[in-house]
Amino acid sequence: MPAPPPPSASTSPGSLMAAEIAEQPEMFARLLRPGAPEVRAIANQIRAADPRFVVLAARGTSDHAALYGKYLVEIELGLPAGLASPSSLTAYGAKPNFTDVLWVAISQSGGSPDLVESTAAARRAGALTLAVTNAPESPLAAAAQLHLDVRAGAERSVAATKSYTAELLMLWLLVDAWRGGDGHAAEVLPQLASTVLQRRDDLVVADRYRFVEKIVTTARGYAYPTAREASLKLMETSYLSAHAFSGADLLHGPLAMIDQDRPVICIVPEGVGGQAMQPVLERLRERHADLCIVGDARFACGDETLVALPGGLPEQLSPILQIIPLQRLALTMALARHHDPDAPRGLRKITQTW
Amino acid sequence: MPAPPPPSASTSPGSLMAAEIAEQPEMFARLLRPGAPEVRAIANQIRAADPRFVVLAARGTSDHAALYGKYLVEIELGLPAGLASPSSLTAYGAKPNFTDVLWVAISQSGGSPDLVESTAAARRAGALTLAVTNAPESPLAAAAQLHLDVRAGAERSVAATKSYTAELLMLWLLVDAWRGGDGHAAEVLPQLASTVLQRRDDLVVADRYRFVEKIVTTARGYAYPTAREASLKLMETSYLSAHAFSGADLLHGPLAMIDQDRPVICIVPEGVGGQAMQPVLERLRERHADLCIVGDARFACGDETLVALPGGLPEQLSPILQIIPLQRLALTMALARHHDPDAPRGLRKITQTW
Repeated sequence: MPAPPPPSASTSPGSLMAAEIAEQPEMFARLLRPGAPEVRAIANQIRAADPRFVVLAARGTSDHAALYGKYLVEIELGLPAGLASPSSLTAYGAKPNFTDVLWVAISQSGGSPDLVESTAAARRAGALTLAVTNAPESPLAAAAQLHLDVRAGAERSVAATKSYTAELLMLWLLVDAWRGGDGHAAEVLPQLASTVLQRRDDLVVADRYRFVEKIVTTARGYAYPTAREASLKLMETSYLSAHAFSGADLLHGPLAMIDQDRPVICIVPEGVGGQAMQPVLERLRERHADLCIVGDARFACGDETLVALPGGLPEQLSPILQIIPLQRLALTMALARHHDPDAPRGLRKITQTW
Repeated sequence: MPAPPPPSASTSPGSLMAAEIAEQPEMFARLLRPGAPEVRAIANQIRAADPRFVVLAARGTSDHAALYGKYLVEIELGLPAGLASPSSLTAYGAKPNFTDVLWVAISQSGGSPDLVESTAAARRAGALTLAVTNAPESPLAAAAQLHLDVRAGAERSVAATKSYTAELLMLWLLVDAWRGGDGHAAEVLPQLASTVLQRRDDLVVADRYRFVEKIVTTARGYAYPTAREASLKLMETSYLSAHAFSGADLLHGPLAMIDQDRPVICIVPEGVGGQAMQPVLERLRERHADLCIVGDARFACGDETLVALPGGLPEQLSPILQIIPLQRLALTMALARHHDPDAPRGLRKITQTW
């Protein structure tokens, strides 16, 4: 069987990213089936170790999965959690006491040297270490005591899409199993993701944003990682000045830069995170900001731009769906501007940082 | 004695911010003198409690002080640390186990409801709670068991300046005392801050950036909070699209949006954090980015824009100096654009978020 051709030889711009976005429903189904027993086994080992603090380490897109994991751990498990600053352990050579700490390193490729090194350092410092990757043979998987494979399949577009939602779902499955759950609530995801991909709201938004240069994304709680990841996708594929803020932080200063000429994408799911955005929406409307509401249509006013998402999903799972139309928005905008999101200028698929 | 006039009645735009920037050397001297015994007493109480994990909670400018505190705790004390997501405790009502946790809430005004509420929740959950504020009579100071007053004096400009460096210095003094230090290394700060204010490099940069609309700031380690705070100052006073990245995260995606027309301010002190930026500077130069080097002049190449800072300060203290020319850059750029940084559009001095 011949080797697959290199991406540049046979594919049109964005075709890899488009295919990988479209794979997500099937990927969720795959991950929910054979992945579950493996997740339960890992969850049992973690529960036996009884960690008291959780530190999550990642870069780029995976760092947004880590932020999602932080909310899950704090809210669902009641454990204090933090995002690692890998440079503390690598560049500065800190020698921490990590007894009773669960260290979770998340990376699509499992190849970034600073994550491998900081995971090894965390393990030496007494942490129980878990790697969540899309690469079971990677150095990161080898550096940690425990490993979870997100089974997203090879990801060839430089702009990560399916590996992100696979990381989110894997973290949800892990925390659910840790609490003794059976993963049942996630079973609707493949069908809902198909529904989201059949809708076309995001394509209308992409057309409306054809000439936008600056954009803001905002959300609170579980949806905040979605705002962060949407901005990163827009930066790396369309070269937009896209800026994500927690709704609360937006009011502490950055609100001043919002004017009528900078659209604001607000991710407002059913549930607590959407409700907590209500005062932020009000302040943005006072400033006559041009809003795009992503999530629960009831948050939209008048003729505001809307990307409605199906209801009825528990809020903790909603980030896995929310990002999908925003991934496609980034893809569509990049193509309209004649950029290739599969190979953005200046980037490589595996980023090496120390 | 008559009450001070309201800001809008008698002051020219930016005069409050200018005065508050200029007060910093004297404020450092004041904080280093009578503040030290109080800090030692608090440090002794914390040491006696022997916390194993530190969670820092803040919003806006104070959140950048919290990030600085996180690096100090991780590197100097070897304790795992994290930044709180206040909404976990407030909006979502998480019921965590905070035994052995030191919770540090940082706020100029001590008045934001979500910080007060999350601090009270952390205390109920078993944390030892410390408030660091510029307002000893504030609700936040009352909600925590321990309080440190940063003694910055009344801050009347909406754009926070002196309260930020006061928070940084207070956190350094606390961690130094916790380790048994005597605060000696900080004694040079008042003199060095005066030297920085006498230099005019930042005014040259402000003129060069008169028509800039988009800007990036970047750094690693201890200087990363400086990059974050500089971007916030530029957003809230000049309404720029200013975007801060850790040097490592910049390479994981956002690098694609960097082109010749978006200046990049790189904060590169003497020491580990500056050295760790060397590969980032190289990648930025490959992309022909227009760099402004703030810190150690030896990192500048050719005719790159430079804001040189005095050498010889331990790297952990350098963020207290680094931000000063960047505060003045934001002030000068705002005035050149006919904005009033003392009262940015859409903002209030005490931001209420829930």
